[in-house]
Amino acid sequence: MKIISDTLQPMNPRIQAAIQGEEPEPIRKIVQSVTAKDIHGIDINCGPLSKEPEQKMRFLVDTVQQETRLPLFLDTTNAKAIEAGLRVCRNPVTINGLSLEPAKLKSILPLALAYDVDIVCYLLTEEGQVPRSLDERLGIAARLFHECVQAGISAQRLVIDPIVVPLLWDDGLEMNRDLLVILKLLPEVLGHPVRTIAGLSNLTAGIRDMQRKMVLECAFLPMMAYAGLKEILMNVDRADTLSVAGACRRLLCETVFG
Amino acid sequence: MKIISDTLQPMNPRIQAAIQGEEPEPIRKIVQSVTAKDIHGIDINCGPLSKEPEQKMRFLVDTVQQETRLPLFLDTTNAKAIEAGLRVCRNPVTINGLSLEPAKLKSILPLALAYDVDIVCYLLTEEGQVPRSLDERLGIAARLFHECVQAGISAQRLVIDPIVVPLLWDDGLEMNRDLLVILKLLPEVLGHPVRTIAGLSNLTAGIRDMQRKMVLECAFLPMMAYAGLKEILMNVDRADTLSVAGACRRLLCETVFG
Repeated sequence: MKIISDTLQPMNPRIQAAIQGEEPEPIRKIVQSVTAKDIHGIDINCGPLSKEPEQKMRFLVDTVQQETRLPLFLDTTNAKAIEAGLRVCRNPVTINGLSLEPAKLKSILPLALAYDVDIVCYLLTEEGQVPRSLDERLGIAARLFHECVQAGISAQRLVIDPIVVPLLWDDGLEMNRDLLVILKLLPEVLGHPVRTIAGLSNLTAGIRDMQRKMVLECAFLPMMAYAGLKEILMNVDRADTLSVAGACRRLLCETVFG
Repeated sequence: MKIISDTLQPMNPRIQAAIQGEEPEPIRKIVQSVTAKDIHGIDINCGPLSKEPEQKMRFLVDTVQQETRLPLFLDTTNAKAIEAGLRVCRNPVTINGLSLEPAKLKSILPLALAYDVDIVCYLLTEEGQVPRSLDERLGIAARLFHECVQAGISAQRLVIDPIVVPLLWDDGLEMNRDLLVILKLLPEVLGHPVRTIAGLSNLTAGIRDMQRKMVLECAFLPMMAYAGLKEILMNVDRADTLSVAGACRRLLCETVFG
């Protein structure tokens, strides 16, 4: 299981201001901080970028790739921003991401083909909602897989994100348990050993107690890892969760233990 | 997944001395401390009890059951001590435990039948060793199950302990990954939704760094829980591990999450 940092995101006011003002220093500091840890990729979440989306994404990608050669995830719903990022990115790169929403199929899907890069596909409905039943979620995975392969994208390029939902949702517990089943079943349903990614921070959205957040992350992450999750998008500043993620890697991988 | 305390054991010199001198106070303190936590049973590990085994076990069981109505596990290789404990125990009780070692089959197995109590069966060879291959471990589970049922013990009485081994063993990592597979396969192999228990402390035996112990426990415990483990025998004084065990219960059980 690879560890992808999710801390470069505009909910952080320093990042928001740095993007607006195109100041590289706060971005650099975040990148230096996360690359000092044992991680395997960085998600660049820049929000919807209503003003100058292409210019802002170029600024972000350039700033980040001056600091690291790690794989980058271009995380925005703005197709123009994604394309601008793809044009300048020299690091391995993944589009984050696609769903069955018609506008995204039209604008984002072709970019994965044109630039021959990996693409994250969210298990969301055509309306961008999280489907509630296990069957519906698996059906959407099959449709997304079909859409991508039909468009000429290699199955190896796809990364499925089954969507972790907040435990505080009425059916959050059941939906996250279903997610474990989805991780197990996807290779069989798709007939392909598909890559998977999940965003851990969403699990404890709305829970304010940091200790409780940490404990729930530490309990759910190893279950996802054991169910077959290939990449975890997480707040790598949470030391306990990061340690447990590292321990999951050692427990599940064929590495020497010492 | 139920949580069983393993802290009442003679590696603790205070406990050792209290057993020798039959002083109830140190035992009471331990019991009061663990029963203040969210646990479901107490393992009474008194070691082999070479001197006055029956008297010592009676003293232990009496002292513990004066403090709590929780289920007790009588954890010794001494069949006479087990029987003495069974005679005086008023709490729900489990024998801990049996293996294919001929002496144990002869002396301990009949006690489960005579007193109509639950019994833990360790997946060990006839020589008391941990079998190395997955197939051998599953084969031993089938033989133990057969021995018990053949002796007239109800399948509901059996609790299988597949034996967590130290990660520091040469093949410790692989054997513990096999254990996850065993937990998944046991109901199918035995044709019965068998109860399972595992001792978590053994996982990090030999590792001195407490932080590292904690992280490994926190990563492996949710994997075992998700693989179907029904009871975890653990050091409930490790607050982080206990919190994660509680979170596993909430994540996997049909409880209201709030």
